[in-house]
Amino acid sequence: MFTYQTKIHMQEIDAAGVMFYAHLFTLIHDAYEEFMTVHNLSLRDILEKKDYILPIVHSEADYKKPIRLGDILEIQLEANEFGAHSFDTQYTIVNQEKVLVALAKTVHVVISKQTHSPLPLPSEIKKIFAVK
Amino acid sequence: MFTYQTKIHMQEIDAAGVMFYAHLFTLIHDAYEEFMTVHNLSLRDILEKKDYILPIVHSEADYKKPIRLGDILEIQLEANEFGAHSFDTQYTIVNQEKVLVALAKTVHVVISKQTHSPLPLPSEIKKIFAVK
Amino acid sequence: MFTYQTKIHMQEIDAAGVMFYAHLFTLIHDAYEEFMTVHNLSLRDILEKKDYILPIVHSEADYKKPIRLGDILEIQLEANEFGAHSFDTQYTIVNQEKVLVALAKTVHVVISKQTHSPLPLPSEIKKIFAVK
Amino acid sequence: MFTYQTKIHMQEIDAAGVMFYAHLFTLIHDAYEEFMTVHNLSLRDILEKKDYILPIVHSEADYKKPIRLGDILEIQLEANEFGAHSFDTQYTIVNQEKVLVALAKTVHVVISKQTHSPLPLPSEIKKIFAVK
Repeated sequence: MFTYQTKIHMQEIDAAGVMFYAHLFTLIHDAYEEFMTVHNLSLRDILEKKDYILPIVHSEADYKKPIRLGDILEIQLEANEFGAHSFDTQYTIVNQEKVLVALAKTVHVVISKQTHSPLPLPSEIKKIFAVK
Repeated sequence: MFTYQTKIHMQEIDAAGVMFYAHLFTLIHDAYEEFMTVHNLSLRDILEKKDYILPIVHSEADYKKPIRLGDILEIQLEANEFGAHSFDTQYTIVNQEKVLVALAKTVHVVISKQTHSPLPLPSEIKKIFAVK
Repeated sequence: MFTYQTKIHMQEIDAAGVMFYAHLFTLIHDAYEEFMTVHNLSLRDILEKKDYILPIVHSEADYKKPIRLGDILEIQLEANEFGAHSFDTQYTIVNQEKVLVALAKTVHVVISKQTHSPLPLPSEIKKIFAVK
Repeated sequence: MFTYQTKIHMQEIDAAGVMFYAHLFTLIHDAYEEFMTVHNLSLRDILEKKDYILPIVHSEADYKKPIRLGDILEIQLEANEFGAHSFDTQYTIVNQEKVLVALAKTVHVVISKQTHSPLPLPSEIKKIFAVK
């Protein structure tokens, strides 16, 4: 289990006074980026040095409680399903009072950077997500 | 069926050279805002004058094709399910070549601005979405 | 004089209930993108086909009035100074009541895509901005 | 002198492969929020409990070097001029190699939350910025 912490700023709040719903997907992606980086596979390295990319083909979120200015969120990341060419990443988001505020999920596929055809899961991806 | 058109700008593209996945949820919300406005129920009016709000409790998207700089997207909005206190809005997104690039959905609940308790669907919401 | 129209959405409003100040720079850049596109020099074309790029080296803005949810802004773009390797673009932003809400300016330089060295202003840039 | 550290994510990079210029103003505002918070005057407290607000009336930035995916920026904040009703905040931004990548400045005014008239600088603001 990997945990990423982030804080909610002025511009992340919308006209209704709570965090704009789409922003949750940015925050969980920040958590994913950090998870990959601490496992020595930064997204910059993937983009510059690897022959595959990992685009998201599905995303979803359930919003449980409003998220407010100054809230400190903990995002727990867990990979829990692998296909031949894909993997699922699940996110559990709690606030500073340990209240569950949202759940989210993304599905990534592995495709060739050149041909955009599906590729088998790279060994480094399998290894990283087994560390969960 | 309501259609909203939007164009993809420099900052909506990410380091992988395609539109950042979270941004889709911003674009469909822009379509929803415009849909409400043309039916004389702008989000500003709801926030300032109504006793209810319409927070999103679930969102999801399927990404079919990469979205690129300068693409002109058409977002078709359709409401297709109503609960006692909620409604679903579905979005079909095609690009300038009429290729399907994404599908998305949001679920809104109706709650009291004061108590945050569920409220029955307001008549103006029923009316607007019946126009589909 | 080129005019671009845009509308202020939910997520562009911040916790203080007005448009977040940084967002003004996104809106004027959208106006710049559209200006270039209508003159047949889209930013995508520049990035894909030209040997130069036009990075911004300076930006500034004066905020005159709060910008609110649902406001419809008109952004007037005018180029008004050229250096050997640079040009200035000025933006005047008024709302739906023709009230001046902001002024802004960006300075672009012309550099080689390969070497990043300064280049003389391309003839197509000179031509486009002379149309002011 | 206050220093804030931040990392550049996928979505902060634009179609030209570098950080979108407007985003710098978001990052320096994040630094300002954190600066205020560590001095026990969070923006949430100001919005909820104080009779004044501190809107930005001017902003500017000079971009010295491209900012790239995964860069770790240090933002140094310094207040260096006070008017009767305003204060200037200056930002120096360096990357992980200690290279200066940008300079920025914002001017804040103090106005009444109710009347929007200018107010003298609150004592807590004077105190916080004297700590520089």
